[in-house]
Amino acid sequence: MRGFRHRTTIKTALEWVDQNSQVLAPEVVARSAANGRVLADEVASDVNVPSFRRAMMDGFAVQAVDTFGATSYNPLSLSIVGEILPGGDSHQEVHRGEAIGIMTGAPMPLRADAVIPAEKASRQKDKLSVFDEVPPERHVGKIGEDIQQGDTVLKPFRRLRPQDLGVLSSIGKAEVRVVRQPRVRLVITGDELCAAGSFPKQNQTVDANSPMLSALIQRDGGELLFDAITPDRPELIREMMLDPDADIVVVSGGSSVGQEDHAPRLLSEIGKLAIHGVAMRPSSPAGMGCIHHRPVFLLPGNPVSCLCAYDFFAGRAIRLRGGRSADWPYQKQTGMLVRKISSVVGRQDYARVTIRGGQVVPIAIGGASVLSSTSRADGFVIIPTDSEGFPPGTDVEVLLYG
Amino acid sequence: MRGFRHRTTIKTALEWVDQNSQVLAPEVVARSAANGRVLADEVASDVNVPSFRRAMMDGFAVQAVDTFGATSYNPLSLSIVGEILPGGDSHQEVHRGEAIGIMTGAPMPLRADAVIPAEKASRQKDKLSVFDEVPPERHVGKIGEDIQQGDTVLKPFRRLRPQDLGVLSSIGKAEVRVVRQPRVRLVITGDELCAAGSFPKQNQTVDANSPMLSALIQRDGGELLFDAITPDRPELIREMMLDPDADIVVVSGGSSVGQEDHAPRLLSEIGKLAIHGVAMRPSSPAGMGCIHHRPVFLLPGNPVSCLCAYDFFAGRAIRLRGGRSADWPYQKQTGMLVRKISSVVGRQDYARVTIRGGQVVPIAIGGASVLSSTSRADGFVIIPTDSEGFPPGTDVEVLLYG
Repeated sequence: MRGFRHRTTIKTALEWVDQNSQVLAPEVVARSAANGRVLADEVASDVNVPSFRRAMMDGFAVQAVDTFGATSYNPLSLSIVGEILPGGDSHQEVHRGEAIGIMTGAPMPLRADAVIPAEKASRQKDKLSVFDEVPPERHVGKIGEDIQQGDTVLKPFRRLRPQDLGVLSSIGKAEVRVVRQPRVRLVITGDELCAAGSFPKQNQTVDANSPMLSALIQRDGGELLFDAITPDRPELIREMMLDPDADIVVVSGGSSVGQEDHAPRLLSEIGKLAIHGVAMRPSSPAGMGCIHHRPVFLLPGNPVSCLCAYDFFAGRAIRLRGGRSADWPYQKQTGMLVRKISSVVGRQDYARVTIRGGQVVPIAIGGASVLSSTSRADGFVIIPTDSEGFPPGTDVEVLLYG
Repeated sequence: MRGFRHRTTIKTALEWVDQNSQVLAPEVVARSAANGRVLADEVASDVNVPSFRRAMMDGFAVQAVDTFGATSYNPLSLSIVGEILPGGDSHQEVHRGEAIGIMTGAPMPLRADAVIPAEKASRQKDKLSVFDEVPPERHVGKIGEDIQQGDTVLKPFRRLRPQDLGVLSSIGKAEVRVVRQPRVRLVITGDELCAAGSFPKQNQTVDANSPMLSALIQRDGGELLFDAITPDRPELIREMMLDPDADIVVVSGGSSVGQEDHAPRLLSEIGKLAIHGVAMRPSSPAGMGCIHHRPVFLLPGNPVSCLCAYDFFAGRAIRLRGGRSADWPYQKQTGMLVRKISSVVGRQDYARVTIRGGQVVPIAIGGASVLSSTSRADGFVIIPTDSEGFPPGTDVEVLLYG
């Protein structure tokens, strides 16, 4: 048992994460499963949308020139010679003096160049009284008006939104190439833990980290590999860390320098322990390294430290390998601090706060084991390495959990 | 075919949504499936967390008084009489002059009241040299320090966060009562449409709305009921609208006043058509009503109108029935408008914009059919009913799609 001799700065640790979190190779998925996924390639359209001239209003397809001069005091009369429904035939013709009833989305008949909206005309059997002028092309959807053949529709690394799925559907894409989701092997260690879902017995702590980390990994676009708590035995932890299916390994517990803290030694034996001990609070015993180019994160077992180290390092790596932005996945809000937050120069702090009436209130109970503080908190404030903290009255940026 | 005689204001339409979107009854789900779900009831703890006194550092459990006066120049000596691992036995005793090796998370032995961190002592076989004082209770996790038995841990209508799942696990909750997710029957009509996933043929438009709406419904916490495009035949649309499994019905297409616009008439026959025609652009042909206390939304088929009407009305109803906030599910950003946005008094507009270098640029192509504009846009600006628009230089709030 010994303390940390040296603690790496947050800046160096983040640079390590960024250098060791390569974007994964693409895979093809059905468009219907692509919501929120990250595009691997540019998508260009093979078609015009719409691919035909179509009516954009319910009304009457006409030659615009036939409406010139029409007003409600001086209606002009046209003969109704047909009707076209959506999905119908576009080979009918409209000659001078004629109109064809048409519905929104229906193909325009030949020779027609405008649609008179239904409310600007009045029909009596096959006669139409037109009350208003329409200029040529009015209420006509042009070929390629939405998307032209060859247009770049979406760019690489775009995280697909609901409307993007609509756009992809409209150009006939049934599948898309997206960045593969990182498979994250979660290793929970700690002989004092009983499984999530069980009721705590004497001297036992129920595993809070696997439920929390599972949800966080899901949020960041990872695919979870987790079975059960791993007993504190080096050969079992080693086997988990070597999972060949994993793109990223996240170990919770046993990350420090105590005699049951096997993970750092194992990582240095089977791969590379690049960083162990970070100048931050909580989470200072966090570590990271690589096994076969797969980043491995050693998170402290204390749940607040675990959350903090996950959010700073592991979550970032998962987002980056999945093609997402390294940015925090939290909304931000600025507010005035009502009580001071203390820190020390040389260490970055993660302070949980609540927001009351727009003001920022630090949470007094700050122990790394008090997970409920992160449920009571609305978010957290980061105190940079070069700061001794913030006095009351400072405007601070809060990253919102909710 | 006729136009709308009267258009309801957005304000009245939103009031109707809020009055007709009752929160659904609770259901019990496994905690592991509860991420992002909305709690139906308050959760109180039946246990203390931790339920036993535990070490918060790796080191040595001692009687604090035995360390008083210890410095690196004047180390004090203690006898190591045992070792306690996490999950181990707490019935060992520490007497004056003694120390027991202990790991983070392990139960404190009897009579010990503090932990000397490993780095503040040095071990030679069964002798410990202590270099620093520790006050009583230092590095000892107290019973109930995180959560006390009887404490309210989470309040009703809380949307569960990753750390909340950790907290629920730590108090032994394997299941939680959450608000049931609204089942949303999606009805896509339009004989000009071919199914999402197919390649557009002559005079056909590929259904873009079902992929987009499916993703939006999922985002808002709805459970999707959707099979295939419904042909423009009243009896088939009626059957879909009457789906007894639905908590909310969303109809896309056929919402206006044309001859193929069956949905409004059907809704007024089999339920109540409360609002038809809203003073907004796009989406003015939107409608809403009820069938057996289930809200029904009639969205225009034009995809931009469909998105807009969904976001204003249907999405809000889904969020409310599922116990979520009515608030927009979009982040907001304020920026200066570089070109004017025009509107008219008496109508609320939804203007798509991009953000370039922090400035807000309206998108020129504004047709309700140009879905790709909502992919090119970074978000939208709402122009209120009492406004004629915004001149260049105005600071406007953008709701961000991304």
